[in-house]
Amino acid sequence: MQLFYTPDIEPTHPQYFLSEEESKHAIRVLRLETGSEVQLIDGKGGFYTAVIHDAHPKRTILNITSVTEGFNKRSHHLHIAVAPTKNIERLEWFLEKATEIGIDEVSLIISQRSERKEAKVDRLSKIITAAIKQSIKAYHPVLNEPVKLSELLSRPFDGQKFMAHCEPGKKLSLRNELILQSRYLILIGPEGDFTPTEIETALQNGFKPITLGESRLRTETAALEACFEVNFLNRI
Amino acid sequence: MQLFYTPDIEPTHPQYFLSEEESKHAIRVLRLETGSEVQLIDGKGGFYTAVIHDAHPKRTILNITSVTEGFNKRSHHLHIAVAPTKNIERLEWFLEKATEIGIDEVSLIISQRSERKEAKVDRLSKIITAAIKQSIKAYHPVLNEPVKLSELLSRPFDGQKFMAHCEPGKKLSLRNELILQSRYLILIGPEGDFTPTEIETALQNGFKPITLGESRLRTETAALEACFEVNFLNRI
Repeated sequence: MQLFYTPDIEPTHPQYFLSEEESKHAIRVLRLETGSEVQLIDGKGGFYTAVIHDAHPKRTILNITSVTEGFNKRSHHLHIAVAPTKNIERLEWFLEKATEIGIDEVSLIISQRSERKEAKVDRLSKIITAAIKQSIKAYHPVLNEPVKLSELLSRPFDGQKFMAHCEPGKKLSLRNELILQSRYLILIGPEGDFTPTEIETALQNGFKPITLGESRLRTETAALEACFEVNFLNRI
Repeated sequence: MQLFYTPDIEPTHPQYFLSEEESKHAIRVLRLETGSEVQLIDGKGGFYTAVIHDAHPKRTILNITSVTEGFNKRSHHLHIAVAPTKNIERLEWFLEKATEIGIDEVSLIISQRSERKEAKVDRLSKIITAAIKQSIKAYHPVLNEPVKLSELLSRPFDGQKFMAHCEPGKKLSLRNELILQSRYLILIGPEGDFTPTEIETALQNGFKPITLGESRLRTETAALEACFEVNFLNRI
């Protein structure tokens, strides 16, 4: 399967022109020819089958032969807000793995103990794009610009809100709390965890404290564990 | 907490001498002094507390003050046999994450479609050691030398045997099949999956075919998903 990510395609289009970069890749690297079948995903749930009409190395023309909208639409919406890791590769790894397993939205939070206060969303988003192509997903998870935790905590969210932390106190489990086929926002703290004040503010804003098990997990592992639990519990 | 991995310590020892390398790390890097408290793990379930008796930079002497055997002993035994990934970093990530989440034994399998036929177990084992220190685990997961799939399939195993594959055919789920608090061996194939013949041989040898969900997962993600599922299902 030769899959291209074409976010500007519309389901009504009878033809599509690959960009210069994708055309070069299709014709010069993959050596596709006129008549070859390819697949397109638009990142909004559209999955297209197309045939190469003109194998031009700079402006390949495709005839769309079929369109499926809402391809493998997910039953729930998962938004994970995670503090970027000091070593950015750990965050990149999380984005790749979460995309494979299933995620809808990621926010990067800047909290009091964050060691990294910024992250290049464009660059990180390319990792997500590569992962949806690899795992054949028609929906492109949204990666939001870094946001201060205090701002995120006070924003309205239509769904269940959770915060995973390691400070003492009563913790719930997603297994018991999750309302299936719903919308979830889960916060994962930085290497030094959230501060007691941040946790208190989150609880006041309706976030439920959760545990992700007895193991001491790194930030990116905790985020992936949350992603795994939500998808596993929602799997029929 | 200053944690050292000391596989040669015994629960009856009243004192312990750190190796030259660990002594240098303790005294020159961590700047620990006589009287400082440290922790030791032996990789076999022993968790020790000790006080520095002589802060010698080449031969630090510790007085053992308490010993806990079977520290955080797991309720089940998970052995994952996975084909080493073409890009070895992906296997390294799996080993680190599986150690954090919980695993007991890893085998590296060489199958017909394996792109990588060898792996340096010594080097990979150091990643596991770093991960048990980071996540404070007293048991060191065992990493076995690479083994041919055909050999592993015919070996006796006292527990449940599963094979995750993407070929057509009936698939079971761990959620329905797993006998809790038991022993498990789970096989994860290479980038190109197991061959139909390998799958057939596995089924004949009592391995049950399982699915890890609808997503197309990379080898290391599939192995980690299996690890997640087994630990999550066994969590009380």
